[in-house]
Amino acid sequence: MEKKITLGIFGFGCVGQGLYNVLHHTKGINATIKKICIKHKYKKRPIDASFFTTDRNVLLNDPEIDVIVELIDDVPAAYEIVKTALKKKKAVVSANKKMIAEHFEELLQLQAENKVSFLYEASCCASIPIIRNLEEYYDNELLNSVEGILNGSTNYILTHIFQHNKSFEKALKEAQELGFAESDPRLDVEGYDAKYKLMIILVHAFGIVLHPGDVFNYGIQHLNDFDIRYAKEKNMTIKLIAKCRKVGNRVYALCMPKFVPVSDTLNKVNYEYNGLILEGAFSETQFFMGKGAGGNSTGSAVLSDISALTYDYKYEYKKMDQHLNYKYSNDHILEVFVRHNGKDVINPNDFESISVRYASSEYSYIIGKINLQQLISMKWLTSREINVILTENNT
Amino acid sequence: MEKKITLGIFGFGCVGQGLYNVLHHTKGINATIKKICIKHKYKKRPIDASFFTTDRNVLLNDPEIDVIVELIDDVPAAYEIVKTALKKKKAVVSANKKMIAEHFEELLQLQAENKVSFLYEASCCASIPIIRNLEEYYDNELLNSVEGILNGSTNYILTHIFQHNKSFEKALKEAQELGFAESDPRLDVEGYDAKYKLMIILVHAFGIVLHPGDVFNYGIQHLNDFDIRYAKEKNMTIKLIAKCRKVGNRVYALCMPKFVPVSDTLNKVNYEYNGLILEGAFSETQFFMGKGAGGNSTGSAVLSDISALTYDYKYEYKKMDQHLNYKYSNDHILEVFVRHNGKDVINPNDFESISVRYASSEYSYIIGKINLQQLISMKWLTSREINVILTENNT
Repeated sequence: MEKKITLGIFGFGCVGQGLYNVLHHTKGINATIKKICIKHKYKKRPIDASFFTTDRNVLLNDPEIDVIVELIDDVPAAYEIVKTALKKKKAVVSANKKMIAEHFEELLQLQAENKVSFLYEASCCASIPIIRNLEEYYDNELLNSVEGILNGSTNYILTHIFQHNKSFEKALKEAQELGFAESDPRLDVEGYDAKYKLMIILVHAFGIVLHPGDVFNYGIQHLNDFDIRYAKEKNMTIKLIAKCRKVGNRVYALCMPKFVPVSDTLNKVNYEYNGLILEGAFSETQFFMGKGAGGNSTGSAVLSDISALTYDYKYEYKKMDQHLNYKYSNDHILEVFVRHNGKDVINPNDFESISVRYASSEYSYIIGKINLQQLISMKWLTSREINVILTENNT
Repeated sequence: MEKKITLGIFGFGCVGQGLYNVLHHTKGINATIKKICIKHKYKKRPIDASFFTTDRNVLLNDPEIDVIVELIDDVPAAYEIVKTALKKKKAVVSANKKMIAEHFEELLQLQAENKVSFLYEASCCASIPIIRNLEEYYDNELLNSVEGILNGSTNYILTHIFQHNKSFEKALKEAQELGFAESDPRLDVEGYDAKYKLMIILVHAFGIVLHPGDVFNYGIQHLNDFDIRYAKEKNMTIKLIAKCRKVGNRVYALCMPKFVPVSDTLNKVNYEYNGLILEGAFSETQFFMGKGAGGNSTGSAVLSDISALTYDYKYEYKKMDQHLNYKYSNDHILEVFVRHNGKDVINPNDFESISVRYASSEYSYIIGKINLQQLISMKWLTSREINVILTENNT
């Protein structure tokens, strides 16, 4: 049943190196690395120089290499590599959430056309086996929702704000210094990274393929001391959550900050950890938590995908095959807290209803219900004076 | 790829009924129930009488029924049913941890001989997909340990003791009244139930098949107010934990109460929930939490197994095939707290070392290191005056 596979690896950062070490130290996995494609020829490497090349075609044109492992940052290059590999009927393992989210439809088609496997567990919450679980275990579950903390960098920042009384700016700076946030933190802080992961989850949870523009993401970049104090006074924290939920036959999704009561399960997820809550009609809730980033966590997911390929594993995309006819729609009423500076840019008529109005010389806020598709069209979303946070009352 | 399967179900309690409802309300699963074998012929049933029989052979001899779902309490009867079904080359789904743990070797052999699938996700922490994850996702992980809270009834009792300041007796009584503990609570309270689950985990985590007598279980039945107060003073709780861990090429396992610091991940698992921490060399720790008992949680796991059978899924028992040569051994040093009444039954020479001796007119205790196999042979384990609790220092 198990077969031997030969790997060509793109990228030799900490994941690639960890992978090399594990493959050379475990008997359990029937895979060997033949060649590694790197960018910088003259960097010093811990293993023999004969493994390396800077020419991608050396890997892609080698008929002995049957699996390509793509572990590079460069999205356009990763896309070209994955596309070419699939067309050459090589199986592919990737951790590149942005690339996958941006090209999902085409990547699905390439898999089908070439009858070849494309696995990407590491792209989604690193070591948490969420895709495999949705694919294999929850395939016939009447799944209602997946909600979680999918970005470790912002969670690290928010944990420092709430557990160590730091301002957003200070916590962000420290996270950058420690390598938990990129030097350009926009992908993380503005919720794009979490959204890409959510898009991958949507395919395996509900069979829905979207474009990044279809899903609303609003990050934590406007968070200020007023918002933080408000949360603390109510015995809550703020978490950047990503969720998709089925309501009848419609599914909505979003990535936004949310007030989370201190006792809530999501508040068990701190620092660089990710956590996911799956709610099924039948299994009630399942909670998964693990490190959402880092070489080892990502490496373990990549390793599992490689191992699965020795058994010819493929995602079946069963939710798509089941013709569940779920329709994606942003037509969903949310309850939000909107902090503003009182200068009338917010039109109450955009809201379904407003339950709280607070005004002070410092900051003001309203709490009200608004349709998600209405919210998405609001010009004031980009204003730094305004911050939007889901209340704890959104299920 | 997907095939249609026809089910014969043994037992029609809440799991069986939930299953019936789900199978009749979801399009996702290609399975129909043909016959249900029950014990009491004249009980009123919510579905048509033609579904029922009291004769097990009606199901076992029906060539159209290709999958037997065994959901009964009676261990010897369940064993006979499962054995017969496998011999008749029918796939089997079971939730019966005691039956499986007691007959593991034979059940493995029957699966191999008859080339037929036997799935039992529901037997182990109900809805938490632990077996499937160990089998599929951690198959090549350098897994170090699995530790967790595997019994919902005792966890419910312990949560009430520590969060609501109840005595053991009062918490047990209330749990029984609410149906969270059996009227004969020995299986739960003395750690047998958790041990059976642990034995199933041992097979899928390390490829080790044992007999129940091989693994030490010591429950919470001796817990008294002194122990509880001790834990609280140290800002800890007590949890009944089950664990198996690899140390070099040896694996040990046990089921015992343990002092758990309030901030520990295991303290996130409360009331009837189960939680598991998987520690890998590469993925660091993964945490899974979900309801460990109840009709819906068990039903969702059974449903997932049925669904897997429509894709001809089998456990591969990869850890056994990998010839990992892990040896099971109770030769492992533990640090334990032993509360006693000062009457000299405890011989210090049985310990490797003793670090704390406390004596008072009420109760006394020692904290010391003892070899697990030595501990197992201690006559005083059964004394109600003595309680043994793992300290927080055991990794």
